[in-house]
Amino acid sequence: MIPQPFHVFDTTLRDGSQQEGLRLSVNDKLRVAGLLDDLGVTFIEGGWPGANPNDTEFFAVAQERLHLKKATLVAFGATRRVGLTAATDPLTAALVEAGTDVVCLVAKSHDRHVTEALKTTLDENLAMIDDTVTYLRGLGKRVFVDCEHFFNGYIDNPSYALDVVKTSIDAGAEVAVLCDTNGGMLPSRVHEIVSLVVATGAPVGVHCHNDTGCAVANTIAGVEAGAMHIQGTINGYGERTGNADLITLIGDLQLKWDWPLVTPEALQQLTHVSHTIAEIVNQPPAARQPYAGSSSFAHKAGLHASAIKVDPDLYQHIDPAIVGNDMRMLISDMAGRASIQIKAEQLGHDLSDRQLASRLADLVKRREAQGYSYEAADASFDLLVRDALAGDEPVEKPFSVATWRVFTDHEEISEAVVRVGFGDDTAHPFVGEGNGPVNALDEALRQALSPRYHEVREFELTDYRVRLLGDGLGTDATTRVLIDTRWEGLSWTTVGVGGNVIEASWEALVDAFTYGLTVIVPGAPTVGDHAFDGGHGQGDRQGVTV
Amino acid sequence: MIPQPFHVFDTTLRDGSQQEGLRLSVNDKLRVAGLLDDLGVTFIEGGWPGANPNDTEFFAVAQERLHLKKATLVAFGATRRVGLTAATDPLTAALVEAGTDVVCLVAKSHDRHVTEALKTTLDENLAMIDDTVTYLRGLGKRVFVDCEHFFNGYIDNPSYALDVVKTSIDAGAEVAVLCDTNGGMLPSRVHEIVSLVVATGAPVGVHCHNDTGCAVANTIAGVEAGAMHIQGTINGYGERTGNADLITLIGDLQLKWDWPLVTPEALQQLTHVSHTIAEIVNQPPAARQPYAGSSSFAHKAGLHASAIKVDPDLYQHIDPAIVGNDMRMLISDMAGRASIQIKAEQLGHDLSDRQLASRLADLVKRREAQGYSYEAADASFDLLVRDALAGDEPVEKPFSVATWRVFTDHEEISEAVVRVGFGDDTAHPFVGEGNGPVNALDEALRQALSPRYHEVREFELTDYRVRLLGDGLGTDATTRVLIDTRWEGLSWTTVGVGGNVIEASWEALVDAFTYGLTVIVPGAPTVGDHAFDGGHGQGDRQGVTV
Repeated sequence: MIPQPFHVFDTTLRDGSQQEGLRLSVNDKLRVAGLLDDLGVTFIEGGWPGANPNDTEFFAVAQERLHLKKATLVAFGATRRVGLTAATDPLTAALVEAGTDVVCLVAKSHDRHVTEALKTTLDENLAMIDDTVTYLRGLGKRVFVDCEHFFNGYIDNPSYALDVVKTSIDAGAEVAVLCDTNGGMLPSRVHEIVSLVVATGAPVGVHCHNDTGCAVANTIAGVEAGAMHIQGTINGYGERTGNADLITLIGDLQLKWDWPLVTPEALQQLTHVSHTIAEIVNQPPAARQPYAGSSSFAHKAGLHASAIKVDPDLYQHIDPAIVGNDMRMLISDMAGRASIQIKAEQLGHDLSDRQLASRLADLVKRREAQGYSYEAADASFDLLVRDALAGDEPVEKPFSVATWRVFTDHEEISEAVVRVGFGDDTAHPFVGEGNGPVNALDEALRQALSPRYHEVREFELTDYRVRLLGDGLGTDATTRVLIDTRWEGLSWTTVGVGGNVIEASWEALVDAFTYGLTVIVPGAPTVGDHAFDGGHGQGDRQGVTV
Repeated sequence: MIPQPFHVFDTTLRDGSQQEGLRLSVNDKLRVAGLLDDLGVTFIEGGWPGANPNDTEFFAVAQERLHLKKATLVAFGATRRVGLTAATDPLTAALVEAGTDVVCLVAKSHDRHVTEALKTTLDENLAMIDDTVTYLRGLGKRVFVDCEHFFNGYIDNPSYALDVVKTSIDAGAEVAVLCDTNGGMLPSRVHEIVSLVVATGAPVGVHCHNDTGCAVANTIAGVEAGAMHIQGTINGYGERTGNADLITLIGDLQLKWDWPLVTPEALQQLTHVSHTIAEIVNQPPAARQPYAGSSSFAHKAGLHASAIKVDPDLYQHIDPAIVGNDMRMLISDMAGRASIQIKAEQLGHDLSDRQLASRLADLVKRREAQGYSYEAADASFDLLVRDALAGDEPVEKPFSVATWRVFTDHEEISEAVVRVGFGDDTAHPFVGEGNGPVNALDEALRQALSPRYHEVREFELTDYRVRLLGDGLGTDATTRVLIDTRWEGLSWTTVGVGGNVIEASWEALVDAFTYGLTVIVPGAPTVGDHAFDGGHGQGDRQGVTV
């Protein structure tokens, strides 16, 4: 049974932003907070006002512009500094000025950190906690106390660690959050120590890091031991190995224990929230992330393909639709004819001819050996299937390309010339300029195509991923490019391979326009859902002016 | 206390290869097996001979060429098929022909899988197990049985699941491996069910997947409940969310429980093994991976910088040197003057002048706002520090660039012209051609520099990572390129930013040659270790002909 109350406390905007390579503008923070509110977390820790100018500004802007439906915004701060009072410490004042109803204070609870890092006495540290909590409670704030390095502290000096909890709660804190700040704990130890603290009667939370690969399991162990408050971050962002991943925790607690942490409708947004926040914070989504990863319900083994078709529940721990994810069949060189047939059927083709399916499977194997990857590039795979189905009679293409060339220099403008033909016409040259060679080639192609196919003006390149393939494929490196294109809400992914990034990009670009004009524009979408979930893979970021 | 015996069973080459995007040639498998043997795992599962031609070939080649020092090679297979005998099933014959002393058989243990996927009776499934194990034992093989979908099976029909274990052991199997094939379990449930099976007296192993984010914790829970055999993969490779990560498990069991799974010398290779296998299987190393990740001992918070300097143990759960990793201080826009000073000191500079350090911190902030990232690019940061230290008197550079231009077309050869000057000389044009625009620019620069600096001919570009920075940095997308360069065993990383991939690459390239000729070539390395661990980040792959 879920404890009442039970807090899902998100700290993506504060502790999550400690991750290497992760930066959040005020605007980013507002967008992330809105998504967290939609998802239905209880608390959103927005940052550390006073310590970080960006965070101070966020709270100022949030007071005017952030209207949360359900979640409560929290400002993070530290206990007052040595030698000051809570009333005279400007950092405490900044925390108050952030204007939130709830504050989360970090307090040292490991004796060595008090004496060696804070360089004060154990008693003064307790006074700092008592003083600051009491002051903030006097101003009407709700207060949570993050007991930093609690688990290591408890192991070294249990009575002092418990004093920190008791001082916090006695001064009016609502929850004492036991933090595995170094992330070195394993679940049994977390269970044991949380149980001992819960036994003192204190309301307890847990805040875990992933340094042993157990952040999620440690959090669950804490809850099993009686914690009523869990802290984590979306996608497990955080310093070093990261924090406990709330996406996974919500999935686990809601689907394995039937705890109603968020509404079923919000749960269906879990994958969307994970990916959108990844986009905002400019991190490639993790393909293998539980629940939300693009690979997490992907099946490759040719062996199981037909069994999965009969009863997906036998091979999946949950129905991926519950968390807004999809089952995917992967086309790869390990997949046999059966997988190719299933995939082609998903894309709306009849590939029941076994000989044809085998020939296509062989072609896919040969092309994957060259560096192509059709696992993500459903649109390029679809074009291959169409060619195979057409047999000796070639598929009519909306355009053909004779030559292309591109010029780039230090002036930052690239110029491209492409020679494009339509049916029987001879090829004519079209020129494009752009903020980079691929952009210039894209422009030239649009110049060529838009008089005949006006929709191409609205084709939007939404993602572009480059991967160099190493010596596994021969002594010469090969470049693989994946391009996501969007038109009227539909997205499709194409792949190109070549000896350099421009050549590979060009091939993916030509496939993107060909598929768009062959399949997408002529009418309603005829391909499966899977053509439309582009951009989930590992790789580079949105916005294409390469 | 560690059970005797205790098996660390690696299945990277079999179950790990089910991961999306992961492909292993026979040669790759031989290299990975050698690294696993060096690390000191007990068993290496090499593949499924008979089912996969590549795996059949691997075992044939392994009999001649793979000489393991300590580990034992295992061939994977299934129980004989319905309607055949073990002696007449060609797949069983293929398993025998693989020539290993140990085989691992997969057997169905979930009643629904027997009736719905295998489409046979529960009794026939037990007969298949008994028959196949008995046959292989008769040939002198040691046999492990992977009980597929065991946990779900036990929950649905405990007595049948236990019958599968009993049949396996009674027929002579050495271990019954309880597999959470769908990956849906949480640690408490794993502990409970493993305990019940261990209580029957059967020697038990566990094989966990990460669908709840608990693969490592579930494995540890299994061991706490009495399992004496753990299966996992390096870096957690595997289908969907992956398998239990042996890198993390070895770290956890060896460092948290003091179990001597591998030698201390091998443990120091943990990071190396993780990264080298990532290279071989062509997967970007996970920056946040416990123990081995490039971010896993990286500290960003300006706040803690000085405290970390005093006593790193206060902020790290282990000494990273034990697993062959490094503590790193990150330079980022969240870092203040103190971090910049520490980092500059690590690079061998005296930045004790507070004003100078503050000015440099401001410059780093401005450049990171433009899209630069110095977290990985220590060499570019070092050049910034040198410029700052020089003040008004500009640092003498080994060369200067006036203009560059590059031409690429469908013929796959790119041509570049760069105008380069040396000191007071006017700039002269040099031409280069290559298998792509960046390769051509690189060649032109080598043409320009090599008459004066013959070492540049030996500079090797070992990694190249492209990242598009999205709308967080303005309406125009920005491209960031990181380049790793190596010379005589020393590596350094530089960064470039621009409106397109060529411009950004060019800047990183110029920094790479400048740093190489300024710092690396003139004498012994003067920069910290951290300049030499390039290539650990997320991103694209080795081999540069872009």
